[in-house]
Amino acid sequence: MTRENRTGELPTPARHEVGFLADLELDGEVSHGDSDRDEHAVDYGTDETDAVRPDAVVYPESTADVSAVVAAADERGVPVTAYAAGTGLEDGAVPARAGISMDMTRMDAIHDIRPDDLQVDVGPGAIGADVDEAVAAHGLFFPPLPSSGDISTIGGMIATDASGMGTVKYGEVADWVLELEVVLADGSVTTVGSKAAKSSSGYNLKELIVGSEGTLGIVTRATLELAGRPEQIRGGRATFPTLDDATAAVSDAVTAGVDVAKIELFDAETAMLANDYSDAALPERPMVFVEFHANHGIDEEVDFCRAVFDAHDVEQFEMASGERMDELWRARKDVTYAAESYDPAREMGQPGDVTVPIGSYPEMIRAVKDVADEYDLFVPCFGHAGDGNLHYFVLRDPDDPDEVARAEAAYGELVERALELGGTATGEHGIGAGKRSYLEPEHGEAAVEAMRAVTEALDPNGTLNPGTVVPDRDDAVGGDADG
Amino acid sequence: MTRENRTGELPTPARHEVGFLADLELDGEVSHGDSDRDEHAVDYGTDETDAVRPDAVVYPESTADVSAVVAAADERGVPVTAYAAGTGLEDGAVPARAGISMDMTRMDAIHDIRPDDLQVDVGPGAIGADVDEAVAAHGLFFPPLPSSGDISTIGGMIATDASGMGTVKYGEVADWVLELEVVLADGSVTTVGSKAAKSSSGYNLKELIVGSEGTLGIVTRATLELAGRPEQIRGGRATFPTLDDATAAVSDAVTAGVDVAKIELFDAETAMLANDYSDAALPERPMVFVEFHANHGIDEEVDFCRAVFDAHDVEQFEMASGERMDELWRARKDVTYAAESYDPAREMGQPGDVTVPIGSYPEMIRAVKDVADEYDLFVPCFGHAGDGNLHYFVLRDPDDPDEVARAEAAYGELVERALELGGTATGEHGIGAGKRSYLEPEHGEAAVEAMRAVTEALDPNGTLNPGTVVPDRDDAVGGDADG
Repeated sequence: MTRENRTGELPTPARHEVGFLADLELDGEVSHGDSDRDEHAVDYGTDETDAVRPDAVVYPESTADVSAVVAAADERGVPVTAYAAGTGLEDGAVPARAGISMDMTRMDAIHDIRPDDLQVDVGPGAIGADVDEAVAAHGLFFPPLPSSGDISTIGGMIATDASGMGTVKYGEVADWVLELEVVLADGSVTTVGSKAAKSSSGYNLKELIVGSEGTLGIVTRATLELAGRPEQIRGGRATFPTLDDATAAVSDAVTAGVDVAKIELFDAETAMLANDYSDAALPERPMVFVEFHANHGIDEEVDFCRAVFDAHDVEQFEMASGERMDELWRARKDVTYAAESYDPAREMGQPGDVTVPIGSYPEMIRAVKDVADEYDLFVPCFGHAGDGNLHYFVLRDPDDPDEVARAEAAYGELVERALELGGTATGEHGIGAGKRSYLEPEHGEAAVEAMRAVTEALDPNGTLNPGTVVPDRDDAVGGDADG
Repeated sequence: MTRENRTGELPTPARHEVGFLADLELDGEVSHGDSDRDEHAVDYGTDETDAVRPDAVVYPESTADVSAVVAAADERGVPVTAYAAGTGLEDGAVPARAGISMDMTRMDAIHDIRPDDLQVDVGPGAIGADVDEAVAAHGLFFPPLPSSGDISTIGGMIATDASGMGTVKYGEVADWVLELEVVLADGSVTTVGSKAAKSSSGYNLKELIVGSEGTLGIVTRATLELAGRPEQIRGGRATFPTLDDATAAVSDAVTAGVDVAKIELFDAETAMLANDYSDAALPERPMVFVEFHANHGIDEEVDFCRAVFDAHDVEQFEMASGERMDELWRARKDVTYAAESYDPAREMGQPGDVTVPIGSYPEMIRAVKDVADEYDLFVPCFGHAGDGNLHYFVLRDPDDPDEVARAEAAYGELVERALELGGTATGEHGIGAGKRSYLEPEHGEAAVEAMRAVTEALDPNGTLNPGTVVPDRDDAVGGDADG
C-alpha cells in the first residue's frame, strides 16, 4: 500500500500460501477467482490504486466454518479480514496485508425474534433494513440503524460501532448490542456480553469487540435489543438566517431537552448541492431537519422545539407526517449522492466525520468555513448536529496537484481543530487503515500502547485484520498509516 | 483468606514491604496505623472473619500521587487496591492480597461544570449526591445515580459499572461516563474515551475500565455526561392481587413503551419487612413503585401506565407529586435497612443481584418462591424490575449450620437459574472477590481466558487489585474464589 503502487492496476503484494483452505471441510465456499479477489480489495472509501487483493475469499455459512478457517490461518501466519457489504469508508474491512477475506454475507439469518424480551438474534451478514423489517411485524424496531442501513450489515455496524440519525435520542449501535458470539484469533468460539439488559459481571468484552473492526474477533451471531415503534412520528425542516443561528438553535434544543429523534444540519452550500442534484428547490440557507417520535403528546414536543428555534430567528418551520415529511427530508437522505455528482471535475475525498462536545459545535462549523476560505476550497458541511457530529466534503480536482495538497491540508487541519475542542477524529466511520495516523494524536501514546497490548494479548500472531486500527509500532505519529 | 482464619480477629497475612512509601514525595499522606488498616480491610459486604488488612493506606491528593505510588509498587511487586466509600457489596475494593490500600476520598473535587456541553469533570472521590447537587444549580442532573448515591463515590460507581432505579429510562453509569483519566499498572497516566458524545476511534478502553474494579487502572478524574432535570415528576405505587400479576404488569409496561423513569417491585414478604421497620402501613401485597419524568404530558404517561396495569387487575394505584410521592416511595428507599433489622436472629447474607431478560422476569420471581419453599427459608425479593434486575435476601441464622448450608445452596441455585434464563450473576454490584466463582459459569472458559489475557497484558505484574474479578488460573470452577 505504498505510493509506488499507484499504477492504476491492483497491486500484487507478497502472497500468503492459502492452499490449506482446500483441506478444510466447510459448509461454505472458498474462491480464488480474480473477480472475487478484486471485489474484496475495496470498500466505499478505498482508493483503488492503493488496494490490496486478498489471496482467497471464503464465504462461511456457519460459526464452525469461521472457526476452522481462523484456527488454520492463525497456525500458518495468514491474515484473515472480515468483509461484508463493503460500505465502510475507512478501509476497515479490506485486507491491508492480503491473506483471506472472510465474506460474512451468507451468514445473514434472522435466527430468533423474542418480542417479550425486546430482542432479536441475527447473523452478522444480515442487512440492517431486513432486520428492521422482520421485527416490524412485532411492532418493534432497531433504533440505531445508520443512514446506510438499507445496504450495510449488522456485522459491519458492530465492527465500526456505527451510529445514525437516531443516535441523538437512542444512542449508538453498541448501546443496542447485548450479546455477541465471537470467533477469537486462535479459532476458539466465545460469547461476550449478556442477554440481560444490564450486567456488571467481569470486563466488558462486548464493548471491546464492538468497534474493533474485526481485529480482536469475528462476530458470528449477535443478540440485539429492540424498542417499540413509536405511535406518532412527525418531522420536517426549519431554515435560519445564518449558520450561527442554526447551530445555536440545535445546541439549545439539545441542552434544553427537546426530545428530538433526529436533528440534522445543512449549511447553505449543502442546500445548493441538494438543489443541483434534484428538484428539491430548497432555500439555499442554513437549515435543520428534525424528526420527533412519541407515543402521545407529539404536538407539545413540536411546539417546544419551535419555541427554542424562535429564539434563534427561525424562518421557515414546517413539520408534517407521512409523505410530506418524507419530501421535506429527502434532500438530507440523498446528500451523499448529491455531493458525489455535484462537480464532475472534483472528487469528494475522504468524508470528514469529526464529533465535538455539543457546546463547541458552532465553533467547529465556523472552523470549517474559515479553513475553506483560507485554502480557497469548496467545503459543504452537514451532520448529526444533535450529537456534535459533523461531516464535510473537501472537494478537490484530482488533476490539480496544488488543489489536492490544499484539500489534504484543510482536511487535516479540521481534524486537529476537532481534537483541540475535545472531540474525536471519527464519530461513526471507524479508524480502519484510513485514520490510524490520528489515533495517537487523539488518545495519546499511553492509550495507544494500551490498545496495542490488548490486540497483542488477544491476537498474538497478528492474524485478525492486521494493519487496521492500531498503528504499527514503528509508524511515525501523524504519518501515513501504512507508509 | 482461608477458612483457617475464622478466628474472629483480623488475620495478618504475609506482609509486603511498604517502607518505600516514605521515600515518595506526595501531596497526600501515608498511614501505617492499625485503625486505618482495619477500616480499609472491609467493605459493606465483607465477612470480617475473612478480612485482609492492607499493609499501608495512602491518601493521594493528586494524579501525580497515584502515579508515583503505583509505579513504585509495580516495580516491587506490591499490590495496590483502590478504595473509597467502602459501600461495595462484593469485596471489590478490599485488598485480597494485602499491600497498599489507595484511598481516593480526598480526590473529591468537582473540577469543572460545563452546562453548554452537559458535562462535569470530577475527582473519583466525589460523592454522587454532591455532584448531583452541584450540577442542579445549572438545571442538570446525573441520571444513573445508584440508590447508594448519598454515600458512594463516583469512582466506586465507575469501578462497578453501578446502576440504579433510573437505569430503566437512563441506562447505567457507563452510559454517562465520557472520558476518564486513568493511572495504569506501570504508573503511566492516560486518558480513555472522549468528551465527544460519540466516537468510533479505536478500542473502547473507557468501557473496559468501567466495571473493571480497579484491576486494569485507577481512575483519577472523570468527565460525566448530564441531562436536564425534568420539569415534571410524578410517582407512587400500585398493588396487585398476585406476584404474577405484578411482574406481568411490569414486563408489559416496559415492552409497551410506557416511559417510566423508575419501576420497582416488592413481593408481599418485602412489604411485610417494610411494615415491621416503620409505620409505612403498606398493604402486604405484591406492589410496584413507579416514577415518571417528563417536560410535559406527564398525565398522559400516567394514564398509559394505568391502562397497562388495569389489564393485570391492579388494585390500589396512587400517583402523586412532592411530599406525598416521597411518602409513597419511602418503603422502597429504606428496604435494605428494613431487611437488616427484621429478624435479630438472622443475617441477610450476600444480597442476590441477578438480572434476566425482561420476558423471563416472572419466571425468575417464581424461582425465588420455589427455592424458598424447597429449602424452607424466608427469601424476600424486590428490585429494579424494569431492567429485569432482582435482589433477594436469603435470611439465615448464623448459629444454625444447617440453615446456613441451606441458605448458601438456595442462593447458588438462584444464580444458576438466572444464568439458565440467559441472565447474569451480578446486575450492578460487580464481581469483586465475592462472585469470581460465577464468572466462568456465566461467560464460559474462552471468555474468562480472554479477560485474563487482557488483565495480564495491562497489568503484567499483577499489581492492581489482584484476587478480584478474574479467577486465578488454578481456581476450580464454581469453587471458593480465593480458597
